Amino acid sequence: MSIVIDGNIKMTVWGESHGPEIGGVIDGFPAGVKYDEEFALCEMARRAPSSSAFSTKRKEKDIPVVVSGIKDNVTEGSPIAFRILNEDRRSKDYGNIEYTVRPSHADYTAYERFSGHNDVRGGGHFSGRLTAPMVFAGALAKMYLHSFGVKIAAHIRNIGDISDDSFVDYANADVIERIENKTFPSIKKGNSERIEKLIGDIAKDGDSIGAIIECGIFGVKAGIGGYMARSVESRIASAMYAIPALKGIEFGKGFSYALGRGSEMNDCFKIEGGKVITSSNNNGGVLGGITSGMPIVFSAAMKPTPSIYKPQMSVDISSMTEKELIINGRHDPCVAIRAIPVIEAVAALTVCDMYLEAYGYNGTK
Amino acid sequence: MSIVIDGNIKMTVWGESHGPEIGGVIDGFPAGVKYDEEFALCEMARRAPSSSAFSTKRKEKDIPVVVSGIKDNVTEGSPIAFRILNEDRRSKDYGNIEYTVRPSHADYTAYERFSGHNDVRGGGHFSGRLTAPMVFAGALAKMYLHSFGVKIAAHIRNIGDISDDSFVDYANADVIERIENKTFPSIKKGNSERIEKLIGDIAKDGDSIGAIIECGIFGVKAGIGGYMARSVESRIASAMYAIPALKGIEFGKGFSYALGRGSEMNDCFKIEGGKVITSSNNNGGVLGGITSGMPIVFSAAMKPTPSIYKPQMSVDISSMTEKELIINGRHDPCVAIRAIPVIEAVAALTVCDMYLEAYGYNGTK
Amino acid sequence: MSIVIDGNIKMTVWGESHGPEIGGVIDGFPAGVKYDEEFALCEMARRAPSSSAFSTKRKEKDIPVVVSGIKDNVTEGSPIAFRILNEDRRSKDYGNIEYTVRPSHADYTAYERFSGHNDVRGGGHFSGRLTAPMVFAGALAKMYLHSFGVKIAAHIRNIGDISDDSFVDYANADVIERIENKTFPSIKKGNSERIEKLIGDIAKDGDSIGAIIECGIFGVKAGIGGYMARSVESRIASAMYAIPALKGIEFGKGFSYALGRGSEMNDCFKIEGGKVITSSNNNGGVLGGITSGMPIVFSAAMKPTPSIYKPQMSVDISSMTEKELIINGRHDPCVAIRAIPVIEAVAALTVCDMYLEAYGYNGTK
Amino acid sequence: MSIVIDGNIKMTVWGESHGPEIGGVIDGFPAGVKYDEEFALCEMARRAPSSSAFSTKRKEKDIPVVVSGIKDNVTEGSPIAFRILNEDRRSKDYGNIEYTVRPSHADYTAYERFSGHNDVRGGGHFSGRLTAPMVFAGALAKMYLHSFGVKIAAHIRNIGDISDDSFVDYANADVIERIENKTFPSIKKGNSERIEKLIGDIAKDGDSIGAIIECGIFGVKAGIGGYMARSVESRIASAMYAIPALKGIEFGKGFSYALGRGSEMNDCFKIEGGKVITSSNNNGGVLGGITSGMPIVFSAAMKPTPSIYKPQMSVDISSMTEKELIINGRHDPCVAIRAIPVIEAVAALTVCDMYLEAYGYNGTK
Repeated sequence: MSIVIDGNIKMTVWGESHGPEIGGVIDGFPAGVKYDEEFALCEMARRAPSSSAFSTKRKEKDIPVVVSGIKDNVTEGSPIAFRILNEDRRSKDYGNIEYTVRPSHADYTAYERFSGHNDVRGGGHFSGRLTAPMVFAGALAKMYLHSFGVKIAAHIRNIGDISDDSFVDYANADVIERIENKTFPSIKKGNSERIEKLIGDIAKDGDSIGAIIECGIFGVKAGIGGYMARSVESRIASAMYAIPALKGIEFGKGFSYALGRGSEMNDCFKIEGGKVITSSNNNGGVLGGITSGMPIVFSAAMKPTPSIYKPQMSVDISSMTEKELIINGRHDPCVAIRAIPVIEAVAALTVCDMYLEAYGYNGTK
Repeated sequence: MSIVIDGNIKMTVWGESHGPEIGGVIDGFPAGVKYDEEFALCEMARRAPSSSAFSTKRKEKDIPVVVSGIKDNVTEGSPIAFRILNEDRRSKDYGNIEYTVRPSHADYTAYERFSGHNDVRGGGHFSGRLTAPMVFAGALAKMYLHSFGVKIAAHIRNIGDISDDSFVDYANADVIERIENKTFPSIKKGNSERIEKLIGDIAKDGDSIGAIIECGIFGVKAGIGGYMARSVESRIASAMYAIPALKGIEFGKGFSYALGRGSEMNDCFKIEGGKVITSSNNNGGVLGGITSGMPIVFSAAMKPTPSIYKPQMSVDISSMTEKELIINGRHDPCVAIRAIPVIEAVAALTVCDMYLEAYGYNGTK
Repeated sequence: MSIVIDGNIKMTVWGESHGPEIGGVIDGFPAGVKYDEEFALCEMARRAPSSSAFSTKRKEKDIPVVVSGIKDNVTEGSPIAFRILNEDRRSKDYGNIEYTVRPSHADYTAYERFSGHNDVRGGGHFSGRLTAPMVFAGALAKMYLHSFGVKIAAHIRNIGDISDDSFVDYANADVIERIENKTFPSIKKGNSERIEKLIGDIAKDGDSIGAIIECGIFGVKAGIGGYMARSVESRIASAMYAIPALKGIEFGKGFSYALGRGSEMNDCFKIEGGKVITSSNNNGGVLGGITSGMPIVFSAAMKPTPSIYKPQMSVDISSMTEKELIINGRHDPCVAIRAIPVIEAVAALTVCDMYLEAYGYNGTK
Repeated sequence: MSIVIDGNIKMTVWGESHGPEIGGVIDGFPAGVKYDEEFALCEMARRAPSSSAFSTKRKEKDIPVVVSGIKDNVTEGSPIAFRILNEDRRSKDYGNIEYTVRPSHADYTAYERFSGHNDVRGGGHFSGRLTAPMVFAGALAKMYLHSFGVKIAAHIRNIGDISDDSFVDYANADVIERIENKTFPSIKKGNSERIEKLIGDIAKDGDSIGAIIECGIFGVKAGIGGYMARSVESRIASAMYAIPALKGIEFGKGFSYALGRGSEMNDCFKIEGGKVITSSNNNGGVLGGITSGMPIVFSAAMKPTPSIYKPQMSVDISSMTEKELIINGRHDPCVAIRAIPVIEAVAALTVCDMYLEAYGYNGTK
């Protein structure tokens, strides 16, 4: 199944890296939401390969063509399907690896899962390209959430030994202004430049690096979410792990929280402006699986791009022999950077789903 | 919804901490699985409050009574429902906190979500007690998985400044022997004693502590799982976040993986004993959302028990005034310890679900 | 899976005819709904075996014990679990049929599906007894729907050659008064007595009979439902077929509608009291899968009780030999009668689910 | 939601009658199934408007373009997405009805459901055109089922006062030969011609007619299906009601079964060729929600095409005034005819889903 979210809205994506096109359908999206094309294209551009000097050299315009569900710039209530052309396919780059499985990629596991019938070129359906439909769907979710006053932003919390401030320490959405329009979104002054240099060095070295991306969802009301696997955390985590290269997700202080003591980590309640808030937000805005009204904050561990230019040992699964592998082709030295708008998008879809559950499709009427 | 897993099997739990009983139903569980009652009771005992000197003083036998779905010690194919008595309820302990919401608990968020209609005593449906049905269901899942050669174990990877070895560095299930039957399961010699002392000190201090629990699933075939939110990671993460106090989940090296480089972190393939394996297992047995045949390894960040004996600032939501709160009652200084069998159980349910997807209900015939 | 409805609310039932107890859990039911115990018990009594002279002689009080989710007669938002004792089990009645499969029962198909591991006594999990939890869950759904002005009633549309008026010809809920409190609910004067005599004759003959039960859901707003398999019809039909012995479902004039012409069957629109209504209701209140504001009317074909006292040919599946079968034990000559409150209950659950989708769980706040 | 089936496979369709294209995605379809393009196009042609002299004059080639999930004529395991151009759109035909809702169509209910934002031209997403993607998906499901020996066929059981034989009376698939390649599929000799004449007369009259379509699924193993709403009937019914104009579904003898007695209707078991079969098949191959090994037989009530050329009374919902409505444009006098391959297709999808549940995705390896 290629479902990103499967609740009151369902988002399915399709396509392969070297097929004619990729696409997606959002089912259950409410009618009457104003479609802001300019905003959607901006979101797409944030993820597109050309947006960074250090991303893959593959050139894709990534203009989604909406084929159903939106008329006169308003959503109709029927499924919103759209497609994105694969314009710059160079399948020959993958000639020598069809049977030699690439380390830390899905080549071997997909071969086992699909008995070798899957398209291996460019990772096929496992390609990072499939995150483009997620971003478009997320842009729509953001349009819906806008009317509820919800704002979403993500930044690079950690990369190599560079660390940024955490959204956990910011109680409102003003912090977003400090990261907007930066090539390498970060709160601390100078971090963007430091990150640019670090990735540049790694690219020159033919290597890759991962990063921890932190996402903040500001303005969510208290009392959204549910029990057990309907918790905010279950739902966000489930959808986030649909993103390739994501290997960890923590809420609030997450793993650091686990290493602390109750007396220092508990988020104490207080009253401010007639509203119940917490003095700290170590829980990342979620208690018992339900929103507290504080910003929802979570961090995603994005692994280094598996494709590197250095030779690696691997196995040719057709001949079952070990083999040295050299990967050519085009790839980002740090996929985490382009994952930033993807993480925001998938977060938006999840929150949209939870709002629909809380207020119904009539809630937007 | 109080669903822990919602796929080919569905597991729902119910009950409140201070209601007459708690229970669960596993729907879709295959017929013909031999029920090993002794094993099930052992698993229950591992989670039961009496199992540790440092756990809550609440006394519960936690003997599940199966009321349907098992006959003559074999599963029938109909839903397996069971209930567990709440024998030792002391609701008066909670008298003074009905309206003063406890920090880092679900009291406030539940109040908002359910308009104050939820049972607040002992956390109501949010109580850690609700993990007992998860353990019983997991025991059944383990019985099913046994015939596929799958073994599951969890240990304390980190607590305070004590750290243990990682399952990431162990390619087979033999490591389990080193943690079995320890009060504080750990691989490294001496850790169990060190942990015992640490928790003892914290309990004396009226404080609490969290821990990072690592779980290994050994013997899973390559090629299990799926795309996007049907990935092994999405499914395990979604179910795990049903466990109270869990604030993070990472696969393999997770967050550390994100901070490393491709050249040092990629899991290279090689052939051993005629089988494709990887030299390292930084990905924790999952690539592209599908199992690689290496052990599935993931870690869960368990926050410190929110209930501590120290005074804390909070809010009385009936009068909307700030108030100092003293929590009495009984609680574990480290809920993470009793979460160990819960994490294993929920892992077992998830893997059971994925095997049913791969082999069908006829796969056990 | 023993799920009756699997949407914004989930209703699961469990138990076997000759197990210790049966039960159910309703997950996702909104908080804050007033629980009317008297009403719930009345509904249970309508289905209970003692309610008709012609029903099975099995004596069951059928008093549901709620073990979670309701406190101080208000729903809490957590799962509502309840159990019902099996008091009058006579398993010996089934001694001679354990391997000789009963015609038109599930004995043979269950044997194949569950490799013979299912409990065959009294039909096990396939027993009509499992409709008791459906009725209780439906009573709760009716309490929720009451605040939206929705009323539900069912009557015997056809039995043998006796036919009743159809709800299709009644635009409002007043018709319900004409069927209430009748042993054999019917609109036409004298039908109740005619039906009583017919069933009596059949019982004396050791035979059984089916019936067509028509259900009307009055007061549903226009604009509820959805596309394709989220249509009102798909959702009601899916849930209805969870009821044993149900072999057909039609909306409005259904099969007769199919045999007519557009010009005579189309429901023309008009305005009455400032509201859009239709002059006729051949579509049974649903157009394009969405409610029109007219009463939702559907009919269910209930087959004759498969258990009859006449000898029948069958097969002993242990020895694979043909065999004459005499069924002893207790059974209704017409299960359709006791299915009336069950059909209403399942309808209520479905409409409750669709209202939650439309208005959210906050819609009742 | 525009989901046709939502289980181990998920099938979503999108598009509007007068949008640029329609399409669908089948998610969860197993890898390694050989794609037979010729067969798929034949199936499409059976539904296409040109296939009958009496169908809409709208000309559509209905050639699906597969954009993902199939490579070298074998399914890959990734989602199979495809699109179909809308070539012959004449939106001006609908100019005068934008606000005057058409009787027995979805215009009014959609207006209420989607607050008037839905595309009303040609029925928008409610158009019968949306059944084209269902047929293509069904063709794929048939390819999968072929390897299990499952065959599916449908015929006109009743239209006006013409009645055909029933599949209930045929124990094996040979009967299919008698209906194949007929313009108006029917078992009885001469029926095809009688039906052709009847529909011709109705078309000349500017009127429309419905029909009862019966579908037989031959060769399904015993023991497929499940409890309650996972019954074969629930699943088939839920998916069938996704088809526009379908107002009833019955299994086996369905409504007639309900009017008979147990002694005459029960399906007695016997042994034939070493296999357990039933002497009659009044239950339509399903007992207790599980297949018996006899053909699955169900009938669908298809209402008369709501669009007729005769004037009808209706309401202009913008001005809230009553109005006489004349419908121009192109429409079939009997939509039921073109629904035949659609019903087969949706049946195939449902059975495919149930086989995947029984045998897993590895069952085809």
